[in-house]
Amino acid sequence: MKEKEFIKIIKTTLKSDYIGDDCAYLKDLGIVMTQDSLVEGVHFSRHFATPYQLGFKSVAVNISDICASGAEPKYLTIALSLPHITDTDFIKEFYIGAKKASNGAKIVGGDITGADKIFISVTAIGSTKNRKISARSHARVGQKIVIAGEHGSSALGLNLLKGMYYPRLSEDERFYFTNSHLMPKVQIGFSEQIAKTQKTDYAMTDTSDGLADALFNIAEASKVMLDVDFDKIPYAESLKKITDYEDLILFGGEDYGLIATVDDPQDLTVIGEVKEGNGVKINYPGFSQFFEKNDIERNLYNHFKE
Amino acid sequence: MKEKEFIKIIKTTLKSDYIGDDCAYLKDLGIVMTQDSLVEGVHFSRHFATPYQLGFKSVAVNISDICASGAEPKYLTIALSLPHITDTDFIKEFYIGAKKASNGAKIVGGDITGADKIFISVTAIGSTKNRKISARSHARVGQKIVIAGEHGSSALGLNLLKGMYYPRLSEDERFYFTNSHLMPKVQIGFSEQIAKTQKTDYAMTDTSDGLADALFNIAEASKVMLDVDFDKIPYAESLKKITDYEDLILFGGEDYGLIATVDDPQDLTVIGEVKEGNGVKINYPGFSQFFEKNDIERNLYNHFKE
Repeated sequence: MKEKEFIKIIKTTLKSDYIGDDCAYLKDLGIVMTQDSLVEGVHFSRHFATPYQLGFKSVAVNISDICASGAEPKYLTIALSLPHITDTDFIKEFYIGAKKASNGAKIVGGDITGADKIFISVTAIGSTKNRKISARSHARVGQKIVIAGEHGSSALGLNLLKGMYYPRLSEDERFYFTNSHLMPKVQIGFSEQIAKTQKTDYAMTDTSDGLADALFNIAEASKVMLDVDFDKIPYAESLKKITDYEDLILFGGEDYGLIATVDDPQDLTVIGEVKEGNGVKINYPGFSQFFEKNDIERNLYNHFKE
Repeated sequence: MKEKEFIKIIKTTLKSDYIGDDCAYLKDLGIVMTQDSLVEGVHFSRHFATPYQLGFKSVAVNISDICASGAEPKYLTIALSLPHITDTDFIKEFYIGAKKASNGAKIVGGDITGADKIFISVTAIGSTKNRKISARSHARVGQKIVIAGEHGSSALGLNLLKGMYYPRLSEDERFYFTNSHLMPKVQIGFSEQIAKTQKTDYAMTDTSDGLADALFNIAEASKVMLDVDFDKIPYAESLKKITDYEDLILFGGEDYGLIATVDDPQDLTVIGEVKEGNGVKINYPGFSQFFEKNDIERNLYNHFKE
């Protein structure tokens, strides 16, 4: 799927200023809005995920987008398309999981239709009341880059679910990583702290398609360079048991962490600084690596594909 | 698809008061919200509809839900899942059609993913500013039943698209009916007039699943009887060339007309009156027919199925 190319065509066709951030910011209504879909065989497999986990994750990824804007998650609608053989227990478990992930937002509607495969599309609405709202284009030279959430765990969990063998991981560690993939934790507290306390504009986005991609999206939209110290990025200690764990941390997707560039980092975890230039620079002990558009796109995280 | 059964389970699982009307009314934000999906092979076929028509209809059915609430259509997001072979022209034509049907609402986001079949899920937001918002439970005995939109045309159009042969219809008439199905007219003026001028509560819903179903939904939610004179229902004159055209008018879906029960019908087309009792009574010259829950469900309109 040539997703980025298609989005360019949509922007041109609609002449829209709204498309580009994790949410559309609808100032006149005091809300943000986002819609994200999960397709069976593309984003998940029924062999790996229970209906509860599917409901949970479908809502979590949309709550994460609301958090990336800085708004307060308020309402959700869910469109479900299901094979005709689906039983009522599936629906019940799905909605219990969806409710669990809603972080206080209310599920207020949607529809159910038939289909060959499961298709889930969730829309989330957030309130901007008493919040400063982010934009990817708001990064400014001199700001600190702050982060919430471990990175790399979800991608390793997906590898485990797909049957890849990591002999050095314990049973507990395997469970930890697969659970990170199936039921991602949303960074609602980090989002609220920034949106309620920053006095100046800030950029924020979630790391749904990988940390490097998220950093790059801010760098590109703001025309700056994001300079990051690899050792400051939070990740699970046992990830180090994996060869090339650095790639999982930078390019693995679906951790649904948040990164932001802020003038006042307070007590948040700082991983780097916004500098003049473009692209993303990752500093390892002793050397640095520079990523431009092509590097990011070549390494772009591929969600589950059957 | 046991859609009504599933919705009951969802309502029980969520303990939600919001589900039941065409839109969820989110009073604290001053908005209404709705999400509706179209699935290839269930709601449409690519053999019948161009990408432009698909974009148009996907948006029109959601704008129609906003109109049914009485709110002003403001914003839309569109989630598209497309087979990998889809070309960029499809996307472009789809969005031109979507924009055409948006009636001034802005398309502000959504996403694109891969899938085996086309799946379209649209969310629409409406503003309740200076509008009185409808509920299906607001019908009161003595109110007049008013209507907008021709009925039966879309269902006949679908039959024509499916290859049914109606020798008495002219080429122009065939085009008229298929076009009614592929590019339904949304009753935005009727909705605005009612929502801006009615001084008392009113019920309103669209006729997406057929006129009889819409009448019945209001009767059931309001615990009243809707008493309708068949001859007052607007329909295309040439529909009379079809045997059993009365069934198309009452049970054919996807005309996306609106019906409302109001205290002050003004210049609107009155088709009947709200009375004590339950269900729907249709009066023909010389006799009356009474419809209860089972009659409606037995005749419920089936969207296109491959």
